[in-house]
Amino acid sequence: MVKLIALGEILVQFNALAVGPLRHINYFEKHIAGSEANYCIAFIKQGNECGIIARVGDDEFGYNIIEWLRGQGVDVSGIKVDPESFTGIYFVQRSHPVPNRSSMLYFRKGSAGSRLSPEDVSENYIKSADIVHSSGITLAISDTARDAVFRAFSLAKIRSFDTNIRLRLWSAEKAKSEIMRLLNEFKPDFLITDPDDSKIIIGESDPEKALKILSNYSRIVVMKLGARGAMVYSDGSIYFSPGYQVQVEDVIGAGDALGGTFLSLYLKGFNVKKALDYSIVASTLNVMIRGDQENLPSTKEIEEFLAEMKK
Amino acid sequence: MVKLIALGEILVQFNALAVGPLRHINYFEKHIAGSEANYCIAFIKQGNECGIIARVGDDEFGYNIIEWLRGQGVDVSGIKVDPESFTGIYFVQRSHPVPNRSSMLYFRKGSAGSRLSPEDVSENYIKSADIVHSSGITLAISDTARDAVFRAFSLAKIRSFDTNIRLRLWSAEKAKSEIMRLLNEFKPDFLITDPDDSKIIIGESDPEKALKILSNYSRIVVMKLGARGAMVYSDGSIYFSPGYQVQVEDVIGAGDALGGTFLSLYLKGFNVKKALDYSIVASTLNVMIRGDQENLPSTKEIEEFLAEMKK
Amino acid sequence: MVKLIALGEILVQFNALAVGPLRHINYFEKHIAGSEANYCIAFIKQGNECGIIARVGDDEFGYNIIEWLRGQGVDVSGIKVDPESFTGIYFVQRSHPVPNRSSMLYFRKGSAGSRLSPEDVSENYIKSADIVHSSGITLAISDTARDAVFRAFSLAKIRSFDTNIRLRLWSAEKAKSEIMRLLNEFKPDFLITDPDDSKIIIGESDPEKALKILSNYSRIVVMKLGARGAMVYSDGSIYFSPGYQVQVEDVIGAGDALGGTFLSLYLKGFNVKKALDYSIVASTLNVMIRGDQENLPSTKEIEEFLAEMKK
Amino acid sequence: MVKLIALGEILVQFNALAVGPLRHINYFEKHIAGSEANYCIAFIKQGNECGIIARVGDDEFGYNIIEWLRGQGVDVSGIKVDPESFTGIYFVQRSHPVPNRSSMLYFRKGSAGSRLSPEDVSENYIKSADIVHSSGITLAISDTARDAVFRAFSLAKIRSFDTNIRLRLWSAEKAKSEIMRLLNEFKPDFLITDPDDSKIIIGESDPEKALKILSNYSRIVVMKLGARGAMVYSDGSIYFSPGYQVQVEDVIGAGDALGGTFLSLYLKGFNVKKALDYSIVASTLNVMIRGDQENLPSTKEIEEFLAEMKK
Amino acid sequence: MVKLIALGEILVQFNALAVGPLRHINYFEKHIAGSEANYCIAFIKQGNECGIIARVGDDEFGYNIIEWLRGQGVDVSGIKVDPESFTGIYFVQRSHPVPNRSSMLYFRKGSAGSRLSPEDVSENYIKSADIVHSSGITLAISDTARDAVFRAFSLAKIRSFDTNIRLRLWSAEKAKSEIMRLLNEFKPDFLITDPDDSKIIIGESDPEKALKILSNYSRIVVMKLGARGAMVYSDGSIYFSPGYQVQVEDVIGAGDALGGTFLSLYLKGFNVKKALDYSIVASTLNVMIRGDQENLPSTKEIEEFLAEMKK
Amino acid sequence: MVKLIALGEILVQFNALAVGPLRHINYFEKHIAGSEANYCIAFIKQGNECGIIARVGDDEFGYNIIEWLRGQGVDVSGIKVDPESFTGIYFVQRSHPVPNRSSMLYFRKGSAGSRLSPEDVSENYIKSADIVHSSGITLAISDTARDAVFRAFSLAKIRSFDTNIRLRLWSAEKAKSEIMRLLNEFKPDFLITDPDDSKIIIGESDPEKALKILSNYSRIVVMKLGARGAMVYSDGSIYFSPGYQVQVEDVIGAGDALGGTFLSLYLKGFNVKKALDYSIVASTLNVMIRGDQENLPSTKEIEEFLAEMKK
Repeated sequence: MVKLIALGEILVQFNALAVGPLRHINYFEKHIAGSEANYCIAFIKQGNECGIIARVGDDEFGYNIIEWLRGQGVDVSGIKVDPESFTGIYFVQRSHPVPNRSSMLYFRKGSAGSRLSPEDVSENYIKSADIVHSSGITLAISDTARDAVFRAFSLAKIRSFDTNIRLRLWSAEKAKSEIMRLLNEFKPDFLITDPDDSKIIIGESDPEKALKILSNYSRIVVMKLGARGAMVYSDGSIYFSPGYQVQVEDVIGAGDALGGTFLSLYLKGFNVKKALDYSIVASTLNVMIRGDQENLPSTKEIEEFLAEMKK
Repeated sequence: MVKLIALGEILVQFNALAVGPLRHINYFEKHIAGSEANYCIAFIKQGNECGIIARVGDDEFGYNIIEWLRGQGVDVSGIKVDPESFTGIYFVQRSHPVPNRSSMLYFRKGSAGSRLSPEDVSENYIKSADIVHSSGITLAISDTARDAVFRAFSLAKIRSFDTNIRLRLWSAEKAKSEIMRLLNEFKPDFLITDPDDSKIIIGESDPEKALKILSNYSRIVVMKLGARGAMVYSDGSIYFSPGYQVQVEDVIGAGDALGGTFLSLYLKGFNVKKALDYSIVASTLNVMIRGDQENLPSTKEIEEFLAEMKK
Repeated sequence: MVKLIALGEILVQFNALAVGPLRHINYFEKHIAGSEANYCIAFIKQGNECGIIARVGDDEFGYNIIEWLRGQGVDVSGIKVDPESFTGIYFVQRSHPVPNRSSMLYFRKGSAGSRLSPEDVSENYIKSADIVHSSGITLAISDTARDAVFRAFSLAKIRSFDTNIRLRLWSAEKAKSEIMRLLNEFKPDFLITDPDDSKIIIGESDPEKALKILSNYSRIVVMKLGARGAMVYSDGSIYFSPGYQVQVEDVIGAGDALGGTFLSLYLKGFNVKKALDYSIVASTLNVMIRGDQENLPSTKEIEEFLAEMKK
Repeated sequence: MVKLIALGEILVQFNALAVGPLRHINYFEKHIAGSEANYCIAFIKQGNECGIIARVGDDEFGYNIIEWLRGQGVDVSGIKVDPESFTGIYFVQRSHPVPNRSSMLYFRKGSAGSRLSPEDVSENYIKSADIVHSSGITLAISDTARDAVFRAFSLAKIRSFDTNIRLRLWSAEKAKSEIMRLLNEFKPDFLITDPDDSKIIIGESDPEKALKILSNYSRIVVMKLGARGAMVYSDGSIYFSPGYQVQVEDVIGAGDALGGTFLSLYLKGFNVKKALDYSIVASTLNVMIRGDQENLPSTKEIEEFLAEMKK
Repeated sequence: MVKLIALGEILVQFNALAVGPLRHINYFEKHIAGSEANYCIAFIKQGNECGIIARVGDDEFGYNIIEWLRGQGVDVSGIKVDPESFTGIYFVQRSHPVPNRSSMLYFRKGSAGSRLSPEDVSENYIKSADIVHSSGITLAISDTARDAVFRAFSLAKIRSFDTNIRLRLWSAEKAKSEIMRLLNEFKPDFLITDPDDSKIIIGESDPEKALKILSNYSRIVVMKLGARGAMVYSDGSIYFSPGYQVQVEDVIGAGDALGGTFLSLYLKGFNVKKALDYSIVASTLNVMIRGDQENLPSTKEIEEFLAEMKK
Repeated sequence: MVKLIALGEILVQFNALAVGPLRHINYFEKHIAGSEANYCIAFIKQGNECGIIARVGDDEFGYNIIEWLRGQGVDVSGIKVDPESFTGIYFVQRSHPVPNRSSMLYFRKGSAGSRLSPEDVSENYIKSADIVHSSGITLAISDTARDAVFRAFSLAKIRSFDTNIRLRLWSAEKAKSEIMRLLNEFKPDFLITDPDDSKIIIGESDPEKALKILSNYSRIVVMKLGARGAMVYSDGSIYFSPGYQVQVEDVIGAGDALGGTFLSLYLKGFNVKKALDYSIVASTLNVMIRGDQENLPSTKEIEEFLAEMKK
C-alpha cells in the first residue's frame, strides 16, 4: 500500500435539498467536504492509505469532520483542533442560474482551516508518506497555509498538485503567481488542472496545447474536461478518455474524485490510460449525488461499471 | 421602471413530492401560483414593477398569498380579501401518465378568485400602470372576472394577453368566442399563445401560419413551443429561439415565465429577438423545480446562463 | 361477527407536517378520513365487519379512498363513484392558536360525498347489517344526505348516532332541530356525544346531567370528555373511565376511535364498562399520530396497553 | 373479464431515498413488491382480475402486504399467514456503482414466502382462473415453492412463465435445469424472458435467435430489452417495439410491468403488436418512480401517453 | 396604529431537524431570525406597524431576509444591502445536552449586520416612529452598532430595551458597563430582562428584587421567567402571569415574542396586566415550533387561546 | 485511560420515522445499534477507550457498522467481516400499542453477528483490556457466541455483565440457566439488570430485594428502573438516583447508555453515587432521539445538564 498525505481545509457543506436560488431553499443536507479530503477518500477507495494535515475548530462541526474522516479510514492524526477559531462551512446552490452547475457561499474567512501553518507540518509525518498532495485552494486561503504546503512539498518524496483556482478566494493574478512559483520550485510529479485554470496560469485554455506547456512543469498532467471526460499527458503523448452522460445532482467534487482516483490507481501500478479510464468513472458517479465523498467507488465497483458499459 | 398590472386568480398549489398518480402520493409541497402572478414575478425579476388585481379568501391560504407576493415585491394593494368565499387551490400530478407532463386537480369553483369583478378595477389604479395583462384563465373562471378584464383593458394604455386555454374551465367553443371577442375589441399590443390554443381560437396549429393570422389581432405575438423553444412575430417577420434540454421536475408555469420575462425585457428596451432569447432561459429554469416562481431568474442571472452556454 | 353499516362522507385529509398556522406550513401529509370511516375501521379492528354507504368523486382522491378502505378490510360495495362531482378534502392546522387543538379548512361544499342521497341506500344492503351508524356531520352536509340517514335508520335493526356537530357546516339551531328530530323519531340504541354538543342539543353541558337527559332518547349514551376520558350511561347508572396523558400529535378523530371501538366491543359482548375502558385506549393512541385511522388498535393491542399500564 | 392466478413471494421493499451505496443512505421508503405481485397489479390495471397464492409472516409486514394488495384490487384469499416464519424483505441500492441500475440486498432466506408449498395450491382455486403465472424466482426460493408451481401449472388451463433468473438465489446451472424442466413439461402458452436469462437457459443472448429457439417451448415469447424496448415472437414472426427515454428513478419491476400488462391486454383481445406497444408504456412509467406498482397505468392512461407521443 | 422602529441584526437561522448534537444532525431547516426582527413581527401581529434599521449582505441570504420581512409586513426601507460583507447566520442545536434548551453556533463575526452604524440611522426615519427598540445583542455586535442604538435612542420619543445578554458576543463585564451606560443615559420607558441578565447588570437574580432595582431605570420593567411565566413592574406594583406547559420544540425567540407582543398591546391601550397575560400566550406558542416568527399569534388568536384555557 | 472490550452483535437499526404500527410507516431512518456497541460508545464518551469483538457480514451494512464505529472512536480491529453470512438488522416500531414503548422486529437469525465464536477471542487482545463486558443478548444469539463470552470472561481482569434478556431470542428458562451459570462461574465485578430480568433469573422483581440477592454474585449491581431512575448496590448499601421527565422519542438503548456511562465513570474514579447520578443523564438524553448512540453525552455535557437542573 502507498500512503498519501494531503494538506488542505476540510469544510462542512450544506447542500440545498432542491434546485434553485438559496433564498427559496428551506432544507439543507450536511456533508463533509474540501478538495483534499475528497482526494483522500478517493485515494483510499482504491486500496491505498491517506492522512490529512489540517485544522478544524473546537466545535461540533470540527468533531463531525474528524469522526467522519476517521470512519472513512483517513489517518486523522495530523488534524489539529484549533481552539481559537471555528470550522469553515459553505452552502451549495444547485442549477441556478445555470443548470447542472453549482455555486458556493462560503463562511470560511478566518476559519481554523485557514490557520493551517508550517508548524503543523511534522517532518516525520511527511516522511512516513509516499506522496504529498495539495491544491490551489490551500495556497489561497492564507499565507500560513500556503507556507505549510511549501514546507510539506520541500520534505516530500513525490508531489501532486491540483490547481483548483477559486476566484472567490483570490484574484487571478495572485493565483497565477503563487501557483507558478510552486510549479517552478517543485515541478510536482503530478499536476491536475482544467482549461479555465490553465487559462489563468499559462494563458492557454485549449486542452492539448495547455497540456504540452504544462508538461514542462510536471511529468504527468491531467486535464479535467467536465462532462466531456479528461486527458492525461505522459511521456510525450496525450490520452483522452470520454465522459459518461448521467443524471446530474451536484457537480461539485467531480474533479477531486477524478484526481484522487487517478493518483491512487497510478501509484498502484496502473498505466496512465487505464488509471484515467477508471478515474472518469469515479467522477461520473460523483455528480449523481449531493455530497462529494459518499458515492466514490472502489476499484472493484469501477470495474463493475465498466463491465456494464461494455454490454 | 415600467409598471404592469395583472388581473387573475392567485392560487395555492400543492405539488406532489414524487412522480406518479396522486392516489399514491403521500406528501405535497405548497407553492403560490396562478398564471398572472407568475407573469408578475417574472416581470419584476427584470427590474420592473408589478401589481395584481385579484381576490383571495379570508383564510390562511389567502394571507399566505398576500404575504408571499408582497415579499416578492409585488404591489398587493389591489388584492382584496373576500370574506364570503375561499382561496382556490389545486394539486399537481407529475409525469403520470405522460412523462414530463403535469396535470392539475382544481378546487377553485366558486373561489374568491373567481369572484373578481369590474368593481375591483379602480380606474386610478389602472391608470397608474404602463401596461395591463390578463389571460384566458381569467376570462374562463367567471363572467364577472371576464368583465373585470374587459373593463381593465378598456382603461389600459398598453395591453397584453395570454390565451392560456384550460379546457377544464370552459369548452373550446366558449374559449374561442370569448377570446376572439377580446382580440377583436382590443387588439392587444402583446399576444402570447401556443399551437394548441391557436388551433382552438383560429383553427390553425402550425406555429408560423398561426403567427401570421394572429398578427392581424396583435402587434407582437409570442408562440410558446414548450421544450422546443418559442417564436415571436413582430413587424412582419418571425424569429425562432430554440429551447434548452434540462432535467424536468414540473413544466407548469414555464409559459408564464417566458411571457412575463419577455414583456418586461421588451418594455425595458430589448428588441424582440433578444427579449425572446432571454425569456427562453426563464422558462428553462422554471421547469427544473416544483413551483412556478422560485426559480425565475433576474436579467443578470439570465446573462450568466447564456454566457455559460456559449462556452 | 357483527356487521355495521355507516353512512357519511369520506374525505382526504392533508395534515400539516409541522405545528403552526397553515400559511407557514410547506409540507402536507395525506390521509383518508371522515368520521364514519374512522368508526368503521375502529369497528373492524375489534374483529367485526363494516361497510360504508358513501359517494366519492371520479378522481384520484376518490379512488384513493376506495383502495385504502378496501385494503383496511372495509366493504366498499356501497361506495358509489359520482362522475358529476369531486371528492371532498380538508387541511388540518395543528396547535395554533391553541396547543394540542387542531382546526380544519374544508373543501367539501358540493362534493360528491355531500351528494349522498336516499337512492344510495339499498334496502337489502341495510338489512344485511346488524347495526347502522351515522353522525351529525352527515345530517349537516346536505338535505339529501340527511334523508339518506333517515331512510337507513328506518330500515335498520339497531341504530347508533354520534352528534358530531361541526359549526362550520350548519348553525347551532339547525343542528339542534335536525338532531332532535332524529333522536325523537328513532331513539337510537347508541348515542355518542360530548359536552359541547349536548349544550347545543339539550342545553346542558354538565356530563352527568346531560347523560341523564339524553338517556330519554337512547338506551346507551357515551359522553366523550377529551383527554379527561369518557362516561357511559346504561341501565340507569353512569360509569366514568379516565384518560391517559400522552404526547399529542393531532386530536382529530379521537372521538370516532372511541365510539367505533366501544360499539364493536359492546356488540361482541363486552359490558359497557369494559367496552369503555378499552375504547379510551383507542382514542389515546389515536391522538399520538397525524391521521385518524393508522394507529387504531386491535383488541389484543388494547390489552397489551392495559397490561403495561397495570405494571 | 379474465382471471389470472399468480404464485410467488411477495416482499416488502425498502428503497434507498437517495442514489449511492447503502452504507451512506440514511432514509428508506417502504413499498410492496415481488415479481408476481407486480404482474398481478399490472394485469388488474388493464381491467382484468388477479389472485395470488403466497405465504406471508404473522407480522406487521405480512399484514401490510395483504392490506396493500387487497386495496389494489387483488384477490388475497389465496395468501396464507404462516405463523412459523417471517415476511421476506429487501433493500434497493440505486445507481451505484452503475448509473440507472439497482441492486438488491435480500432478507428472505427461510421466509414465509419461501415456504410456499403444493398444499397451498387448491385445485378449485386454480380452476377458477383462466390463466396461471409464475416465474423463475418462485422456482428458486425453495423446493416446495417450485413444487407448488409445478402443481399449479399441471392444473392450469393457460400457463405463463417469466424466467426472471436471480443469481443470488440459485446457480446458473440450477436455474437452467429447473426452468428447462418446466418448459419441457408444460410448454407454457406465454414465456417472458430477456437476453441474459436466455443466455443461461438456452445459451443464446441474441434476441432474435433466442426467440426462435424459445418458440419451440412456448407459443408466444416476449423478449424484454430494457430501455431499448421489447420483442415478441408469435405465429412465426417477430415484432419489435422500441422503448422511450425518460428520467430513471429505479428500474426494478419494469419487466414485470411489461409482462403483466402484455398478458392482460392480449387476453382481452389485443393483438400481440398492440399489446406489446402498450406494455412498453407500462414499463417506461415504472422506471420513473421508486416502487414497482404505484406508477402502473390503466389502459386508458397508456392511451393518453401514446396520444401525447404522437403529437 | 403605533409604529415601532427596531435596530438590530437580522440573521438566517439553520435549525436542526432533530434533537441532539449538531455533528449527528443531517438536515437543517432555514428560518429568518434575530431578536429585533422577532420583536417587530410580534409587534405587527397585534395590529401595529414596525420598521427595522439593519444591514444585510449582498447575497442570497440577505435578499431572503428582506423578502421574508417585507412579506410579513415589516417596513424594510431601513434595511441596507451592504456590498462589503455577508449576511450573518447561525445554527441551532436542540435539547443537547440540556433537554428543551437550545444552543447557538454563530457565523456572524464581521457580518453586514454587525456593520450597522450611526450613519444608517436617519433622523427623519426615527422621527416617523412612535417608539424605538433595541437590545443588548445590538450593543454587543460592534461599536458602530452600539453607537447606532445610542443615536437612535437620542432621537426617539419612546424607548424600549431588551437586555438580551449573549455571553458568546461579549463578556459579562462589558455587557454590564454598556447596558448600564444606556440605562443611565436614556432611562428607557420599557425595559425587558430576565434573572440571568439582571444578575449580570445589577447583581440581583431574584425577580421581585431585581424588578424593584430596575424600576429606577425604567418606568415599565418586564421580567421574563421562561416556562414559569413573566412579571411586570409598573407604577410601584408587580404583577405575575404564569406560563403554560406545552410540548417544546425550540425555546429560542420566546422572550422576543413576549416582549414584542407586550409592547404592541400596551401601546394599543391594554393595561400592563392584560398585556402581560396576552404576551405569555405568544411566547408559549413560540416554543412549540422551530423558527422564531412563524407561530406568533394575532390578538384575536391569543384570545382564542385564552378562551380555550378558561373552558 | 481505561480500556473496555465488549463482545456482542452490532446491528443496523431501521427506526420508524413516525409513531404507529409498522404496516403504516412509510419511511425508516437508519442507525447503528446493538447493546454492546451502545455500551462502548457511552464508555468512550467519558474519556476512556473501547474495542468490540464481533462479526459483521461482507455487505454494505457490515461496512456501515465498521465505518460508523471507527468514526466514533471505537477500536474496530476485533470486528471480523464474515463472508459467509449477513449483517443482522431490525426495525423499531414506536408507541404502538403502548405509548413511549418501542418494539423490535429482528432479521438476525443466522446473521454474521450470531456466528461470533471463541476463535474470535484473541487472548492477547483481551489481555490488552482492563475490563471485558457482554450481555444476555450475546449469550442468547448462539451457542458459539455464548462460548465466546465465557472464553473472554475467563481471560478477563475485570468483568461486567448486563442481563438484557430478550424473550424473542430465548425462553425465560434458557435465559435463567445460562445467565446463572455465568454469574456462578465468574461472579462478575459489575452486574447491570432491571426488575423484569431479575424476576426471571432470581424470581424477584422488587428492586431492593433483588439487589440484595444479586449482591451475592457481583460486587456492584446496577438496577435500571426506566423513567423512574436507577439504583446501585455497593458495599452493602443501596443508592437510588431518580430519573428526569422528558419528551420521549424512542426508549431503546437507554439502559445501555446508563450502564456504559456508569462503568466508564466508576473506572475513572467516580464513586458509585456520582457515577449513577451522571449515568441517569445519559439515559435521559438517549430517549429523546431515535437511534441509541447519537445523543450520548460526554462527562462535560452531563455536568452542563446537571448544572441546569440545579438552577
